Amino acid sequence: MTARRAGLLIATVTVVVTIAAGVLMRVLDHSEFPNVWLALWWAVQTVTTVGYGDVTPENGIGRGIATIVMLTGIGFLTVVTASITAVFVESARRRFYADTERAEQDRHSEIMERLERIESRLRDN
Amino acid sequence: MTARRAGLLIATVTVVVTIAAGVLMRVLDHSEFPNVWLALWWAVQTVTTVGYGDVTPENGIGRGIATIVMLTGIGFLTVVTASITAVFVESARRRFYADTERAEQDRHSEIMERLERIESRLRDN
Amino acid sequence: MTARRAGLLIATVTVVVTIAAGVLMRVLDHSEFPNVWLALWWAVQTVTTVGYGDVTPENGIGRGIATIVMLTGIGFLTVVTASITAVFVESARRRFYADTERAEQDRHSEIMERLERIESRLRDN
Amino acid sequence: MTARRAGLLIATVTVVVTIAAGVLMRVLDHSEFPNVWLALWWAVQTVTTVGYGDVTPENGIGRGIATIVMLTGIGFLTVVTASITAVFVESARRRFYADTERAEQDRHSEIMERLERIESRLRDN
Repeated sequence: MTARRAGLLIATVTVVVTIAAGVLMRVLDHSEFPNVWLALWWAVQTVTTVGYGDVTPENGIGRGIATIVMLTGIGFLTVVTASITAVFVESARRRFYADTERAEQDRHSEIMERLERIESRLRDN
Repeated sequence: MTARRAGLLIATVTVVVTIAAGVLMRVLDHSEFPNVWLALWWAVQTVTTVGYGDVTPENGIGRGIATIVMLTGIGFLTVVTASITAVFVESARRRFYADTERAEQDRHSEIMERLERIESRLRDN
Repeated sequence: MTARRAGLLIATVTVVVTIAAGVLMRVLDHSEFPNVWLALWWAVQTVTTVGYGDVTPENGIGRGIATIVMLTGIGFLTVVTASITAVFVESARRRFYADTERAEQDRHSEIMERLERIESRLRDN
Repeated sequence: MTARRAGLLIATVTVVVTIAAGVLMRVLDHSEFPNVWLALWWAVQTVTTVGYGDVTPENGIGRGIATIVMLTGIGFLTVVTASITAVFVESARRRFYADTERAEQDRHSEIMERLERIESRLRDN
């Protein structure tokens, strides 16, 4: 899997998990999350690891879901950072390679010209 | 876009979004954010994902702005980390290349000297 | 140590520290952490740096353990991000190398063919 | 500046800023931070971006110091991650280079042997 694809995959998974967790919280913990907007607000501040603590799950299942959202957030941070870095490093490599490849080709041409001359001299002898 | 420029761009965007969000909060949520300093204090701890929770937006528009600040903070973390990494990796590559290029040039010189000798021998024949 | 192994090592250490800290908190701070599930809930939101603040250690030893969990969390974030990045960059390097190596081999073949021809001509003379 | 040195520098700066901020808070905000241990506990959870919110600065100067601690924490995260990544990528590059360098040397030997043979044939003619 390429870095770009891994980045897009984790980004998609994170959006889906965040929204799904918000909706699930609304369904499973009526008292703490009386409406879905509050649940989504909680999900966003959890997945970004901000965690104000103004809304928090109080029962076991809610905390289990919260744990999944937190781990997804960490997964997003690490994989997306890695993915963007890999794209940057790769594009720098290609720019750099353009220069070194030219030096390599110059050396090759020098050798080939010499060999050409040697061969033609042998032909003439 | 180079890594360096992407890093500077996201840094600028983050500063602008953080200050703008602080000012907007003061305007849109008078009761929670009675002065602009409190709003900026909230914006800084949100964009850095610290999120004490001593000041939090209570209405929908405020939470929408908060979501933008949080996502900007995550964008900053990932892109700036990627940008610094790319600069480090690139400078290590250049140091490393200086060594391998020398080895490459030595090999090239060796071949060229040989070819020189062969050619001069052919000239003398 | 390779990047992959470092990533697995810090991941293992993080899981062990998180669980151990949860269990220790339950033992050492009965009043704040009346059951192990609450302690584990606290450990997870601390190691991921979410930190709602709904459960926090109140005595010195608890805060000492919390500090270790926080630093472990930061260690996890940095090393795992570095590890995944290194894997991405390395696999991009190998894909890229396949192309440059082919160009290198083509140049080498060209030289060898020339040398072959020169040598056979010398044999015939 | 190499990646390794940058990583050590930011780590040192972060430790110094965290401790200094804790001590300063104790001095400048007596009422919120009645003892230095509480101030250090606040500094650690701020620099790691955990931010429980159980202790927070209430006056302007305290929030200014807190902002510096938060930004130092983000600086630490980004630069240390970049630094570790660069070390991983560099060591992978050196392992990889050992292989490609061998291929390069084999090709060089092949050419040199051929040239040797051509030259000795010319000498014998």
